Amino acid sequence: MGSRGRITLQTIAQEVGLSKYAVSRSLAGKSGVSEETRALIRATAERLGYTRPAGQSQSNDIAVVFHDLDAVNSELYMQIQNGVQREAHRLGMALRIRWTHSAGQLEELARSCAGLLLVGPHDREALTAATATGIPVVRFGWVDPLEQADQITGTDHEAGQAVLQYLIGLGHRSIVYVSGTPGFRGRRERYYGAREIAERHEGVSLQVLEFDEQNGFSATFRYLKEKGVHPTAFFCAHDGLALTVVSELLGQGYRIPDDVSVIGFGDFSPATQISPPLTTVKMEGQEAGAVGLRLLLERIENPRLPGMPARRVMIASRIVERRSAGPCACRAETSGTTLAKL
Amino acid sequence: MGSRGRITLQTIAQEVGLSKYAVSRSLAGKSGVSEETRALIRATAERLGYTRPAGQSQSNDIAVVFHDLDAVNSELYMQIQNGVQREAHRLGMALRIRWTHSAGQLEELARSCAGLLLVGPHDREALTAATATGIPVVRFGWVDPLEQADQITGTDHEAGQAVLQYLIGLGHRSIVYVSGTPGFRGRRERYYGAREIAERHEGVSLQVLEFDEQNGFSATFRYLKEKGVHPTAFFCAHDGLALTVVSELLGQGYRIPDDVSVIGFGDFSPATQISPPLTTVKMEGQEAGAVGLRLLLERIENPRLPGMPARRVMIASRIVERRSAGPCACRAETSGTTLAKL
Repeated sequence: MGSRGRITLQTIAQEVGLSKYAVSRSLAGKSGVSEETRALIRATAERLGYTRPAGQSQSNDIAVVFHDLDAVNSELYMQIQNGVQREAHRLGMALRIRWTHSAGQLEELARSCAGLLLVGPHDREALTAATATGIPVVRFGWVDPLEQADQITGTDHEAGQAVLQYLIGLGHRSIVYVSGTPGFRGRRERYYGAREIAERHEGVSLQVLEFDEQNGFSATFRYLKEKGVHPTAFFCAHDGLALTVVSELLGQGYRIPDDVSVIGFGDFSPATQISPPLTTVKMEGQEAGAVGLRLLLERIENPRLPGMPARRVMIASRIVERRSAGPCACRAETSGTTLAKL
Repeated sequence: MGSRGRITLQTIAQEVGLSKYAVSRSLAGKSGVSEETRALIRATAERLGYTRPAGQSQSNDIAVVFHDLDAVNSELYMQIQNGVQREAHRLGMALRIRWTHSAGQLEELARSCAGLLLVGPHDREALTAATATGIPVVRFGWVDPLEQADQITGTDHEAGQAVLQYLIGLGHRSIVYVSGTPGFRGRRERYYGAREIAERHEGVSLQVLEFDEQNGFSATFRYLKEKGVHPTAFFCAHDGLALTVVSELLGQGYRIPDDVSVIGFGDFSPATQISPPLTTVKMEGQEAGAVGLRLLLERIENPRLPGMPARRVMIASRIVERRSAGPCACRAETSGTTLAKL
């Protein structure tokens, strides 16, 4: 201890003007140190060439935590997990995978890991508990506007734009965005993208259909028709909703895509199980997992110092054309005829 | 030539079922080969362990091409250039930097380089010329919805959301988005973000002000007031517009931020030259440059095979609080009084 020239916690404490206790807690990844201070201490320790005494070294494991109550996204989460695991295997790294929404469990895990991938709609308390440990965190999920947090997502906004462009290209002019139960952030993002395109095309109407998914879609659709809206295309915010819409429309005698087109979002397994198979948007969960892990490793090797901006990384989705969407039947006729038929 | 077991162009040609000529052109980065075919050929060559004969090796240089006619973004481009150069220096790499919008020059440059960073609003012809050479291209600039192209941007949409949240938090309810000359994509993205937040707050009005920037802002502002709109805050789509708005409002006797708040976008040099100094949104051009170069290197080392999704990488901006925005004067009074005063 303290051979001449040896860099100790005390050296770092003097350099940054904080207590040795604060430096020790910070480097051990314990709570009670702000994120900025922690980054400063870590950078100072690195610059001075500090090495932690044997026996205190933190694990180099990466923790991957999935939200355990978000059933609607479970297939996407499996893709992400698959991508993270393959990339970790390729790099020869150890992963600890946990499914939880508990802030306490999250913090405990974060304390014993070098970095954390956080997948799903974890609440503010859980996020704070995770980031307060000072380890790098990369999030799959939503962030606040300009929040300084590293984030991996799909291209939800663009997907909404692309689907509307696609439907308009097929001749559809009366389009419904099937949002289902309100309140999901991704669904809203896709709607905003779709709306921007609809606004730029004269004569295109985009209606939003919100309803309690427990009760199915038909009652709300009937109400829409009573209001005089006769859509020829449905853009569903999620493949699960597209299953509801396709099956209820088929039950009412509509032919798909001859009478109406239906497009989903996600490209999950049911998309090819239902008939006709769904034209939908493929989310690239596996690639997102691999890219998320690499971003986390970059942050572990070069911690984000105070003032260094956070990053958003989006994996571009793509439209997968199957058989549930086709040219608008209104194309060859007057639109009045079609509307009456519907 | 052709020692037993040696992998030649012919071996690759047989493996992929194409002519030796096509394989040769493809590996030399010449035109006439689709992007997908090129990626397949490259992957096959790599898998078989093909090494190009001496004397034909392509340069390992990276080309960085800036659009030369986009003056309004020149300060951002300098930041990007700075970031790319620092990162290249750190990695010991050679860069070739060119300012051009010419498709011919772009293609010529791309043919002799290993990868291309393309900065600015290059047109479709130039983009096609660059990507047709088959080298990886990373773009700073706009892409089409779900276009399979790697892209680096700022967080324009989020910035619009964050500024509106900020102004609403200061008590502003009648806000104008100063868009200036219509048609700029980034300005539209910021507006869409701002609008989404305005819509979620009852009693908040967000008006868009478009005008020919040659003629200044006052005439349009006067028209707005005649229509009964009396804003207490202006969110300007670009710092340059904020200079116009601040100076013309000061000339009309308004006090900033006592009577009206003004927020810019960009955090360019004039933001601290004008008085009061501008509250604005800092774009992180330097970080974007460094991250763009690293993404390009990743794509050069592991080319994006057919079906592998493109990536969008966004560098999170942040609001820089200076002195041009403050609490709404309407807060302590009835809004009627304030409106009359304005």
